[in-house]
Amino acid sequence: MSELGPGDPELLTLKALKALQAADVILYDNLVSRDVLELAPCAAKRILVGKVGYGRSCKQDDINQLMCALACSGWQVVRLKSGDPLIFARAEEEISALEQAGIVYEVIPGISAAQGAAARLKVPLTRRAGSRRFQVLTGHAASGGLPDDFDWTGVADPGATTAVYMPKATIRLLCSELLARGLATNHPAIAVFDATRATETVITATLATLPNRLEQADTNAPCVVLIGEGVARPAYLSAASRQKRKTKCCA
Amino acid sequence: MSELGPGDPELLTLKALKALQAADVILYDNLVSRDVLELAPCAAKRILVGKVGYGRSCKQDDINQLMCALACSGWQVVRLKSGDPLIFARAEEEISALEQAGIVYEVIPGISAAQGAAARLKVPLTRRAGSRRFQVLTGHAASGGLPDDFDWTGVADPGATTAVYMPKATIRLLCSELLARGLATNHPAIAVFDATRATETVITATLATLPNRLEQADTNAPCVVLIGEGVARPAYLSAASRQKRKTKCCA
Repeated sequence: MSELGPGDPELLTLKALKALQAADVILYDNLVSRDVLELAPCAAKRILVGKVGYGRSCKQDDINQLMCALACSGWQVVRLKSGDPLIFARAEEEISALEQAGIVYEVIPGISAAQGAAARLKVPLTRRAGSRRFQVLTGHAASGGLPDDFDWTGVADPGATTAVYMPKATIRLLCSELLARGLATNHPAIAVFDATRATETVITATLATLPNRLEQADTNAPCVVLIGEGVARPAYLSAASRQKRKTKCCA
Repeated sequence: MSELGPGDPELLTLKALKALQAADVILYDNLVSRDVLELAPCAAKRILVGKVGYGRSCKQDDINQLMCALACSGWQVVRLKSGDPLIFARAEEEISALEQAGIVYEVIPGISAAQGAAARLKVPLTRRAGSRRFQVLTGHAASGGLPDDFDWTGVADPGATTAVYMPKATIRLLCSELLARGLATNHPAIAVFDATRATETVITATLATLPNRLEQADTNAPCVVLIGEGVARPAYLSAASRQKRKTKCCA
């Protein structure tokens, strides 16, 4: 089992690169970039197990079964995901299947989309004063929507930085729940599409304006939303610095 | 500005490795491992800017000033931290200083301690059913303790996985606040010292037993605590699998 960065292949860890280079078979998700797949040997078999690959549908049970069958046949298998495999990535089901099959494996952590997006934006996910909690949620739960019994009061903390993954379908409900629990209409919110890729797009908004801005965005690219005082584009960030992201620190 | 893994140098990203290899000067924190520092060229000057280095004290202002002065002199500077530089790492102050000095820089995200620890434990930080929020807090705020106005109600969600960084001094207060807000005495909690290092030590506990267990632990190693239903050592994890962490996935 392995991971990759939120888009930029250089956000892969050295450990993940080694695993890829030793792979006979790679089972990868839709969001995995081609650049990352190219890091594996030419001879390695690449199998897409996302929603559009591996036959007509690719259910979690099918992925588990394929992964275990390949490993039991003696192949060195890498299960490649986008982001961190332990954050919104069905790790529990896959680890459980590997354990039941008695397969020896390791889990390699990865840079999650919120981390990649924040680094590109140059905004902190926590701050010494103000944002003392960083939390991650998904806008797309098992039901396809937001869970009925979600702890909104817990999420709606003005002193937290909140990252919402796959927010597009449920962002209107999410923002209205946060506003109903006292967060300000001008509470900062930033949507990042294709974080860390060349096609990265950033929408700067507030809790009041974010739903419309997201709905108007003409893209189906993967999206992460960052909400919090700390992620507002701070005054100290010059426009120039945003244009020079690719240059290393020098005078 | 760059980062490293929570202990294991292989958790460094490819991007961070490149930055280190191109460095003239590295300003590093106490928790950075020697193995990571060795990845930089021999000729690179390494300066410890943690609490025990850089003269008698090493205040944040001094670090900012040194970093900017070196960069303005034309050196390629890497500011190397442990974990993700945007999570509990004073990034805001250092980014602000770089901006004010007009220095061109980039921020490289890193694997945070909770991610490294969870991967080694093979436990998910979120689950499709149950743990739908992952949150990170520090047990050591600006005051040295826990903030007076902390949103405990927000933190005390039985459906969240919570990682607490630097918890040792304040864990008794933290557990009692969570218990007072309805979390069960047997709610699972795991403390990991020296996550991902050869010296990694794991203490499995509950909210009721964690404070005593941590206080009895005879170590000053860096510690992260994971709290939540998902981080209990699941029944599906065999004792054997924990002994085979270093082996890649194969039959």
